[in-house]
Amino acid sequence: MSLYALVMAGGSGTRFWPLSRHSRPKQLLPFAQGRSLLAATVERLAPLVSPDRTLVVTSAEVADAVRAELPHLPGHNVLAEPAGRDTAACVGWVAWRVARSKPEAVMIVLPADHLIPDGPALRSALASAAATAAARGGLVTLALRPTRAETGFGYLELGEVVSAAAGRPVHVVKRFVEKPSREHAEEFLAAGNYCWNSGMFAWTVGSIQGAIREHLPELAAGLDSLMAATDAVGEEEALRRHYPELQKVSIDVGVMEKAKPVWAVGVDFAWSDVGSWASLSEVLPQQTGGVRLGDVIALDSDGSVVVSEGPLVAVVGVHDLVVVATRDAVLVIPRNDAQRVKELVETLREAGRDDLL
Amino acid sequence: MSLYALVMAGGSGTRFWPLSRHSRPKQLLPFAQGRSLLAATVERLAPLVSPDRTLVVTSAEVADAVRAELPHLPGHNVLAEPAGRDTAACVGWVAWRVARSKPEAVMIVLPADHLIPDGPALRSALASAAATAAARGGLVTLALRPTRAETGFGYLELGEVVSAAAGRPVHVVKRFVEKPSREHAEEFLAAGNYCWNSGMFAWTVGSIQGAIREHLPELAAGLDSLMAATDAVGEEEALRRHYPELQKVSIDVGVMEKAKPVWAVGVDFAWSDVGSWASLSEVLPQQTGGVRLGDVIALDSDGSVVVSEGPLVAVVGVHDLVVVATRDAVLVIPRNDAQRVKELVETLREAGRDDLL
Repeated sequence: MSLYALVMAGGSGTRFWPLSRHSRPKQLLPFAQGRSLLAATVERLAPLVSPDRTLVVTSAEVADAVRAELPHLPGHNVLAEPAGRDTAACVGWVAWRVARSKPEAVMIVLPADHLIPDGPALRSALASAAATAAARGGLVTLALRPTRAETGFGYLELGEVVSAAAGRPVHVVKRFVEKPSREHAEEFLAAGNYCWNSGMFAWTVGSIQGAIREHLPELAAGLDSLMAATDAVGEEEALRRHYPELQKVSIDVGVMEKAKPVWAVGVDFAWSDVGSWASLSEVLPQQTGGVRLGDVIALDSDGSVVVSEGPLVAVVGVHDLVVVATRDAVLVIPRNDAQRVKELVETLREAGRDDLL
Repeated sequence: MSLYALVMAGGSGTRFWPLSRHSRPKQLLPFAQGRSLLAATVERLAPLVSPDRTLVVTSAEVADAVRAELPHLPGHNVLAEPAGRDTAACVGWVAWRVARSKPEAVMIVLPADHLIPDGPALRSALASAAATAAARGGLVTLALRPTRAETGFGYLELGEVVSAAAGRPVHVVKRFVEKPSREHAEEFLAAGNYCWNSGMFAWTVGSIQGAIREHLPELAAGLDSLMAATDAVGEEEALRRHYPELQKVSIDVGVMEKAKPVWAVGVDFAWSDVGSWASLSEVLPQQTGGVRLGDVIALDSDGSVVVSEGPLVAVVGVHDLVVVATRDAVLVIPRNDAQRVKELVETLREAGRDDLL
């Protein structure tokens, strides 16, 4: 099997301000034992997919920073989007691109900014998904067994088990469910046949091309034009002309929710989408009652996330608080309000503080 | 009347870390409408006491910074202690010094680091105290009418009214009371004849010299030696030899609690000893529900004190919290725990972080 990996590293990540900036999105933050989430993701993949077949798609703005973060990857494997066009365009571009040289290839797709401590478990699951994709055709997703009634993720309703891959059940997916209400999330957790939609996929290049042609014909036509222009004027100029016009939709909404069949490989390794400052306390090692990164002194501050990339940060007697300091900005916000960072970033934008964004 | 003022500016002020440092104690912090407490204190005095008769005593370490802060004062009026020996030594040194040229002078004594917004009221009260000292002899203190059952201050129990000065009653002081329990503080507030000990005094040079000779003979002998050595080898060398050996005790404990008679001029102007970060919310102008100094954005953060001398500080949804940022350190502590800053400073000292102290 000719196995490729697409690591999607296009996120902007305002949720981790002030550590994350335009020039340094979430996937470049040092949340994986001192390394970036991106570097950890690519490193976890390496024993399964060789570096020359690992493609990272990111924004033109941070492409150089991404290359610097991945010294073992050929620089031309970091592909720069001139504009963000959501995940269907990103997946499509890479599928169309790989199809020219390896039309029989199987593609693994995964986000750059998730945290999965158990590398062997991830690789084994991805290998199962790739094998399922190669054997059955169709689209394959990893289905994470839920550990709580989370309302921030989409869910998959799983149907019958059609086979097993390396001991893991392969289900048919009955439907994709958008982020549920609290009540529905509780029901899903109790029902047992609902899983979190991980955003990690496997498919043959032919299968995903076929699915995009069927469900997103406008995107397929745009990708055809992009490839034709690449032959005529080179990739850089072709991207400049065509990429910003590609149909903008997520792979979930545009393809996965419509395609049949979709297979799900059930997995249950520890996983986090590292969705907010609050989530760091679930995924990072705890010290003295909370998360501590950088030059930090914390006295009696259980449950707090305290991060510094500059000044000494001293916290005393605060609970369930997020405190983050860089050389030019400091954030203090309760853990349970951490999603309000977006509101704050918007306030800064309106105040013309672009130097801090 | 030949009126002198002694402004005591010897405090170290760890309670305002990280803004206050060894090299920049509390009295140099910009808590008086953008100016330092020290500059505001000297400026408030100026219409009552001429600059050439205003003496500021501070530590040798910060004497140059104090001179820079007081451009209208003759540089030699800023007197540098080679070592801190508490307030009795400081008062005694200045009394012995002034006595040589103006033995009939009246001295006003006040701390450099208190905040009294109403300058005319302060000057009028100090003039009354000075007039009382000149007319009656003895030691005179300003007695602040309490506005709450504060346990952090010493109290004066006032006796009979012996006269009035510019409409203010002059009482005999029955006793000095150390910081009381909550229960006693409530009783004092209810009783009506207890006042806060302001730390502001007036006396003739002769009266305070006499009181020190009577109650602190060891200090008096040390001051005699210091003055003799000043004649013999100059003030700088005399200070180096004798000042660090002076008896170390506060003017309250060493003299005021023992001397008779002590007169109290009752005052009721707004006053704060600016004793902690928490107190700033009592004395500084409130904006959007709290104290804001410097580059600060605060959303829904009532009752919080947010101060920056460097990075932008953004707080969201925090209540009754103190957040202070400088270029090299950030403090986050609940207002009600603000006294624990001292513990934090001790932790830093033990950790060898002297660069931050």
